[in-house]
Amino acid sequence: MEPGVLEAGVVEPAALKADATRARHEGLWALRSANSTSTEVGDIFALAARPGTISLAGGNPDVDSLPLDLLGRSAARILSGQGSRALQYGGGQGTEELRRQICAVMSLEGICDADPEDVAVTVGSQSGLDTITKILCDPGDTVLTDDATYMGALGTFATYQVNVHPAATDADGLIPELLERRISELRADGYRIKFLYTIPNFNNPTGVTLASHRRQRIVDICQEANILVVEDNPYGLLRYEGGLLPPLRAGNPLDVLYLSSFSKIFAPGLRLGWALIPRHLKQRFLIAGGSSTLCPPAFNQMLTSAYLRDFDWQGQLEVSRGIYRQRRDAILAALENQMPAGITWTRPEGGFFTWLTLDPAVDTHALVHRAASAGVVAFHGAPFMPLNERTNQLRLAFSALTPELIAEGIGRLAPVIAAS
Amino acid sequence: MEPGVLEAGVVEPAALKADATRARHEGLWALRSANSTSTEVGDIFALAARPGTISLAGGNPDVDSLPLDLLGRSAARILSGQGSRALQYGGGQGTEELRRQICAVMSLEGICDADPEDVAVTVGSQSGLDTITKILCDPGDTVLTDDATYMGALGTFATYQVNVHPAATDADGLIPELLERRISELRADGYRIKFLYTIPNFNNPTGVTLASHRRQRIVDICQEANILVVEDNPYGLLRYEGGLLPPLRAGNPLDVLYLSSFSKIFAPGLRLGWALIPRHLKQRFLIAGGSSTLCPPAFNQMLTSAYLRDFDWQGQLEVSRGIYRQRRDAILAALENQMPAGITWTRPEGGFFTWLTLDPAVDTHALVHRAASAGVVAFHGAPFMPLNERTNQLRLAFSALTPELIAEGIGRLAPVIAAS
Repeated sequence: MEPGVLEAGVVEPAALKADATRARHEGLWALRSANSTSTEVGDIFALAARPGTISLAGGNPDVDSLPLDLLGRSAARILSGQGSRALQYGGGQGTEELRRQICAVMSLEGICDADPEDVAVTVGSQSGLDTITKILCDPGDTVLTDDATYMGALGTFATYQVNVHPAATDADGLIPELLERRISELRADGYRIKFLYTIPNFNNPTGVTLASHRRQRIVDICQEANILVVEDNPYGLLRYEGGLLPPLRAGNPLDVLYLSSFSKIFAPGLRLGWALIPRHLKQRFLIAGGSSTLCPPAFNQMLTSAYLRDFDWQGQLEVSRGIYRQRRDAILAALENQMPAGITWTRPEGGFFTWLTLDPAVDTHALVHRAASAGVVAFHGAPFMPLNERTNQLRLAFSALTPELIAEGIGRLAPVIAAS
Repeated sequence: MEPGVLEAGVVEPAALKADATRARHEGLWALRSANSTSTEVGDIFALAARPGTISLAGGNPDVDSLPLDLLGRSAARILSGQGSRALQYGGGQGTEELRRQICAVMSLEGICDADPEDVAVTVGSQSGLDTITKILCDPGDTVLTDDATYMGALGTFATYQVNVHPAATDADGLIPELLERRISELRADGYRIKFLYTIPNFNNPTGVTLASHRRQRIVDICQEANILVVEDNPYGLLRYEGGLLPPLRAGNPLDVLYLSSFSKIFAPGLRLGWALIPRHLKQRFLIAGGSSTLCPPAFNQMLTSAYLRDFDWQGQLEVSRGIYRQRRDAILAALENQMPAGITWTRPEGGFFTWLTLDPAVDTHALVHRAASAGVVAFHGAPFMPLNERTNQLRLAFSALTPELIAEGIGRLAPVIAAS
């Protein structure tokens, strides 16, 4: 019997009242949330959580290799020795110690002129992206992105009723000439473009990296068009081969707002990221950020500071890189060995993802559900598409699985693909 | 010499470029952030932080009396034993254990029918308020509030370009007849009212509590007018005298969205709050919340769960209540002893604040700066006013100071008020 139905034909008064209230409240929704009812992403994670399933879905970092006992002792020391500060409200911009350390982290990537005054600690880089979108985008404004991009960013843009327009990429990332042309066309059609959102290193979902020789050109094009660049670089320090490419922000302190995170290089469970903000954008960023989350958690900041100060975190990062490199190699080998002819995939130099392209006739949304029945789950392409269109692509996350499980997962996936 | 000026008349090229970029980017701001440049609140906290100053400004809870060593051991145990979970991404709605415990906390307040399925853990109740405003309010929509209300809520409403209209209160809180009339008038003038935001227990800033006999009437008026009630109840368990008054939510699961927080009953430095959401509003709330912060921090949730599970947290709360009661008594006694004639103040039965009303001719904004020179800081009324108008009122927070410091602070404040 359905809940709320007492017996055939008799409906509980409480259920009736709930229905009436739901109907009555329909008029209360803001336009921005009128269409936000998709459970597609949640559905995939639910499939991935079924016992016995191998999940290539979530881009979870490997936290098991962290020095957990030592971190535990750090946490205990902070609470017993500085609990009054760790458990209290803190400043909205984050602690000065952590902001200084963040500048040191960024210097490893090639950003050497960052001032702690221009850093805001955020509740994951997600909240930094929410804040910059909030302060720059009116409903109907336009944001440009890589032609496949982080689904969480698309979620944020949707809640601010932003038009998202993809800019074309190839194996070397954004294509400057096409970006330039796209901007001109959109401008000619009356679109107000506020920023380019891009993940230049090991893009989520494609794993593709923006080539060195294109980087400054991308910033110049945006500067010329008076479009801010929002650079999201959570994976930059997770490079497994090839040399460092300086971020877009490196030589462009005024034109690039830089977002990054401790979620991939330390621990997502602490929810700490940061923004390096052009000074003229800082004040309104901080005010808007405070109106969402007041301040980042003091205890988490102090624990992260202790990790960066008291541990060989760079040595630990080298260990993580070794683990991820092995996993990347395992997935590339398994794909090579097991995928049917005609399937292609990217070969990421870092990060967590590879991107599979199937026959153009295949809709991977349906395929993912068939794969789940075969005991393996990955993400179809649509959630990463700015226009949410169905695609013949799959994102495979290799970060969270051992080489053995990766091989087994690809082993389960290959026949599903072959049959499609 | 000003930064950027090399010598008389010669300006650095870098400074020129920064100015040009700032000017160029002026066109990028969203309407919602065009006016968000006030540093008024930050200025007060800066005054309060000066050495030797007694701060009656911030409503900080007393975290020093928490069992810091024991909490430290809990944190260590969680990281060393369950670090893989504590440091990893978690679900957007929060852990099931904490949501169950939150239901038990709410049952102490008189909400006995809450289902953990309808609870969302938030990054402080600030982020819950941000989310509900985001999903309900288009620019130009209207929110009703108590005639003086939490400044952080007003900040959130401002970022969503909401019209805030105050509803009249007296010593018993919101006045039902005037709320009803206000709604009719606003409706007649074409305003789209989405919700009433109210802090029924020990309101921030006034300390006033909504009387028992008015509570259901307030909900009925809103239901009748099809306006959601957003009830913010962070101080409900911090009552120092008088009997419990059930929240507006208690008997009204469909018409009231309830917000609360661990910031006042445990530790604000962990940034955890929650929302109890009418089921028909839940899905969009979770999607919009995820687009801001992805998920609440797993480690903080596990530490809070351990605190609620392994400690006598209700005994600890009784200790806190004793400390705050003493502080409230100290501030009321000091005001009684030291304030000049004609000044009035509220007598809160709980919470952190009392609200002083001075001579109508006094603008407390100027007075606060004179008080700072005398070594004491409090908040003037304007930041708590929905229309941000200057007032002759002061908010005094007594939660964070010993009775001795409270007496000394009021001793410094009294002559400044007497001279105004």
